[in-house]
Amino acid sequence: MDIIQYINENAILLDNHLEQRLIFPEAPTRLMEALRYGVIGGGKKIRASLCLATGEAYGIKREDLLSLAGGIEMIHSFSLVHDDLPEMDNDDYRRGKYSLHKAFGGAMGILAGDALLVEGFRFFLSDSQFCKMVNNTKLIRILKVLLDALSVEGMVGGQVLDIDLEGTDADEDQIMDIYRMKTARFIQAPILCGAIVGSANKKELNDLERFGLLTGQCFQIKDDLLDVTQPSGVLGKTAGKDIEQKKATLVGIYGMNETQKIMESLFREAEAVLNQTSRSFSLLREIAHFIITRHH
Amino acid sequence: MDIIQYINENAILLDNHLEQRLIFPEAPTRLMEALRYGVIGGGKKIRASLCLATGEAYGIKREDLLSLAGGIEMIHSFSLVHDDLPEMDNDDYRRGKYSLHKAFGGAMGILAGDALLVEGFRFFLSDSQFCKMVNNTKLIRILKVLLDALSVEGMVGGQVLDIDLEGTDADEDQIMDIYRMKTARFIQAPILCGAIVGSANKKELNDLERFGLLTGQCFQIKDDLLDVTQPSGVLGKTAGKDIEQKKATLVGIYGMNETQKIMESLFREAEAVLNQTSRSFSLLREIAHFIITRHH
Repeated sequence: MDIIQYINENAILLDNHLEQRLIFPEAPTRLMEALRYGVIGGGKKIRASLCLATGEAYGIKREDLLSLAGGIEMIHSFSLVHDDLPEMDNDDYRRGKYSLHKAFGGAMGILAGDALLVEGFRFFLSDSQFCKMVNNTKLIRILKVLLDALSVEGMVGGQVLDIDLEGTDADEDQIMDIYRMKTARFIQAPILCGAIVGSANKKELNDLERFGLLTGQCFQIKDDLLDVTQPSGVLGKTAGKDIEQKKATLVGIYGMNETQKIMESLFREAEAVLNQTSRSFSLLREIAHFIITRHH
Repeated sequence: MDIIQYINENAILLDNHLEQRLIFPEAPTRLMEALRYGVIGGGKKIRASLCLATGEAYGIKREDLLSLAGGIEMIHSFSLVHDDLPEMDNDDYRRGKYSLHKAFGGAMGILAGDALLVEGFRFFLSDSQFCKMVNNTKLIRILKVLLDALSVEGMVGGQVLDIDLEGTDADEDQIMDIYRMKTARFIQAPILCGAIVGSANKKELNDLERFGLLTGQCFQIKDDLLDVTQPSGVLGKTAGKDIEQKKATLVGIYGMNETQKIMESLFREAEAVLNQTSRSFSLLREIAHFIITRHH
């Protein structure tokens, strides 16, 4: 199957699953609208596809991983919603529509973001079939992988570094640290979660961790390239913000061409990691390739 | 022991424990400063005491519950930090010092809040001794209790209702719903967590759930009373905000005296629940009594 078709199909499966399950009768209507607005529809749901594709390599059916992949997308959406707030990147657009705080107001931007994080974990913890499939030991490992990726040494820490290094002449190492913490940790995490469900062995987990890191760095570099080359209409969010906000990026240091080459070299390294594994992770390879070739 | 002394002693134990363990070498320094600012020092740490006191009723040593109680206080602090943000209650003071966003800036108010939530869970999940003491089944139950209390049908939902009902003529039922969701769920949760560690039976869990709900409602009513009667200097946060922000409160409907009576009647109900249990929860009773008689 064509990888774009695979990713799109997953996104539709996910949206349907979220649509059906994100109903809480006792929650305020306006909050539920905001929560659903933040995660359903729009977005490529790449992290979900990474989780599903890893699971498939271990023979886990996509259907059985939807609540985990859905929870991961909710947690990812939490980070986008907070990142768009005026105090942060102050972006009015996301996924081709108003960002959540712009559509629902600033208080809701904070609260619906918080809710997406909390409900993301509850999304798979409340799925009794999923919890039965993975035992409690695996469930704890999955929770730890996700929380570690979000931690002060992961995504949240990376966000702070990203802001701290705005307008400075950060070097390549510092920038790659930001990319690793801010982005790559939460590209790694869905892969590791899929692998844990699939009972991957230690060697495979190490390889997938390395692959996830490299692919995550590629993801952020590609994002930075797109920020320069694509118009807002294509990105679905405001383009050209990195320069405007004086973000520390590889493009800023090396320019477009050199940065493209660094990304391609990281991709080849990621590919090489997969090639040396005994198991076939062809879908993962294809998704990584999509990540560096996408147009938005 | 005098209950105020017990609570103060716990707060000191907790602060020392947090002080020692909240060190992450790879996290940005400024984020760690903000994180520690948000939870160490100041605050009565009532929720931690509720958890520790419940554990003690089951013979669990305080020392063995510090990482759980510490995590709970971090999660509680997350809610305060976000609640103080300009989009929300817009408060410059908390616990007798600048609120976090006022001291560290708006972006950090959002990010350090997020970090307190994430690191709160990691705080006990990363304590191998604690995780060994409780098995994985209990650990999952504890995580679910905390996440449920924070959910769209819990604290976050209550925050949204609280904002939605500002300036309306909400009735007692609606207000008690806000109190239950916004406050009582996360007063219940630490009690239930302590009870789960202590292997409480179903009947005890039900009783403690009921006691926690009533005590949590008392807590919020007392907060509303103090908002009217005490000056900012005593509260450590800006007083008189409920009237200014047209919050829907019992005091607003019934006035001070009647509200005081409702609170006392809820406290007696909470006391009655404990009296009918076979186990002695005297510390819990004392903490609940402290909650309705405190001066700040």
